[in-house]
Amino acid sequence: MIITLFLQKSYCMRIVLLGTGNLATRLGIALHAKHAEIVQVYGRSGTSASDLANLFGCTDTSSMPEIITDADLYILAVSDTSIPEVLTNAPFHDRLIVHTSGSISIDILSSFSENYGVFYPLQTLSKQKAVDFSAVPICIEANNAENLEKLNRLAKTISDQVFRIDSAQRRELHLAAVFVCNFVNHFYAIGEKLLQEQNLDFNLLKPLILETANKAMLHSPPEIQTGPAVRDNHTIMDQHLKMLQQHPEWQELYELISKDITWLHQCD
Amino acid sequence: MIITLFLQKSYCMRIVLLGTGNLATRLGIALHAKHAEIVQVYGRSGTSASDLANLFGCTDTSSMPEIITDADLYILAVSDTSIPEVLTNAPFHDRLIVHTSGSISIDILSSFSENYGVFYPLQTLSKQKAVDFSAVPICIEANNAENLEKLNRLAKTISDQVFRIDSAQRRELHLAAVFVCNFVNHFYAIGEKLLQEQNLDFNLLKPLILETANKAMLHSPPEIQTGPAVRDNHTIMDQHLKMLQQHPEWQELYELISKDITWLHQCD
Repeated sequence: MIITLFLQKSYCMRIVLLGTGNLATRLGIALHAKHAEIVQVYGRSGTSASDLANLFGCTDTSSMPEIITDADLYILAVSDTSIPEVLTNAPFHDRLIVHTSGSISIDILSSFSENYGVFYPLQTLSKQKAVDFSAVPICIEANNAENLEKLNRLAKTISDQVFRIDSAQRRELHLAAVFVCNFVNHFYAIGEKLLQEQNLDFNLLKPLILETANKAMLHSPPEIQTGPAVRDNHTIMDQHLKMLQQHPEWQELYELISKDITWLHQCD
Repeated sequence: MIITLFLQKSYCMRIVLLGTGNLATRLGIALHAKHAEIVQVYGRSGTSASDLANLFGCTDTSSMPEIITDADLYILAVSDTSIPEVLTNAPFHDRLIVHTSGSISIDILSSFSENYGVFYPLQTLSKQKAVDFSAVPICIEANNAENLEKLNRLAKTISDQVFRIDSAQRRELHLAAVFVCNFVNHFYAIGEKLLQEQNLDFNLLKPLILETANKAMLHSPPEIQTGPAVRDNHTIMDQHLKMLQQHPEWQELYELISKDITWLHQCD
């Protein structure tokens, strides 16, 4: 029992969270539930920061000079475009700092601190929806082995899937995530809109949406491609294009994607 | 007990299954497990038909004239393009016949029989993967109230979600299904390919794929749109377009979809 407590203590980090958005909220909650202490939340909007700080029982600030300067880790969970501004004004130089962005290189932190890294949870996070962090892949990168090990130990307290991923790979992961998450969600939106136009309920499509995702858990997607394009069925495709006449932008998308599917499967 | 048996018996239909593909297999298995008797399987390829018939303990045939002519229901589960050919040669006129296609009007059956309809399960079905049919929306349509009620009772034995959907609505559902299933699966394929090019494992994207689908169960998709396009972040979008230089067709897709997302959300 004493050993267990000692081990837990050794993993405990005092963390300042910079940011109050979806990622800051969900990551903060996951870390707070494990062996980390969120000691302060910084946010430009005082209200969001204090709401989040209340969850962790810590202080909050919207003033850069008030940020605690002796924490073990600073997590930059602000939008990509705000990173340079925060770095210019932050008072906590040379402590370990990580950003959480998919597309920004680790190098953006190199002139700011001697200890830096990236802590990127590859998941779509919302303030409103809880997420099981143990299944979220966390991609870590650091400027040296010691910092990498610190991030590795921290990441492993909240997730079973921790990966060492460099900036070029992370950028590629983010691009792939745009296709399988952002673009996919937009297609759900198109599906909903098409149904609304016929007074049909989006609920009708939900079992199909889930099953399509579940199938990709078990099979390589090209192997399970279905639909008129992979069967090269021009009668159906022409019918669909005609039905999309009121939406020329979706007509164009339909044609492009169908051609790409047909092409990919003819190359098999 | 006697009453229960009587009720079960009253729902029991003797069904001939025409087709041996994914839909015929999964629908046949679901019906066979409930209050229906598959009495024959027809398939152009003798092997597939006998494999399927073995599952149901019934006869099979690859010869049209051998099809049983006194069944209660004939389910046409062949490809859209094969429907006319089957109808030309089928020997069982004026029995109740349904097709199972998303895009073909009910009218294709009107000159063939006085009793006809549509029995369309809105789901992506594979021979290899079992599916919980109780959650599969079944869209039914018939040429008169009596036949509609027969199909309704049959559909309700296998699914909790049975909907009366006319041919125009079903066609729209099918078009929406192409976006949320076929096109979405192609985007999973693009994601997998992008990762392979960097020696990254597709497993990394799986939690994100599942969570994206799960979110759409709870929210209207436009309300939960994330990513660079909805934030109108041109730095990231330009970076992604540059990364896609080797794939001009995906570059074009990326630009079109991003514009559509930005446009949709600026109109909100």
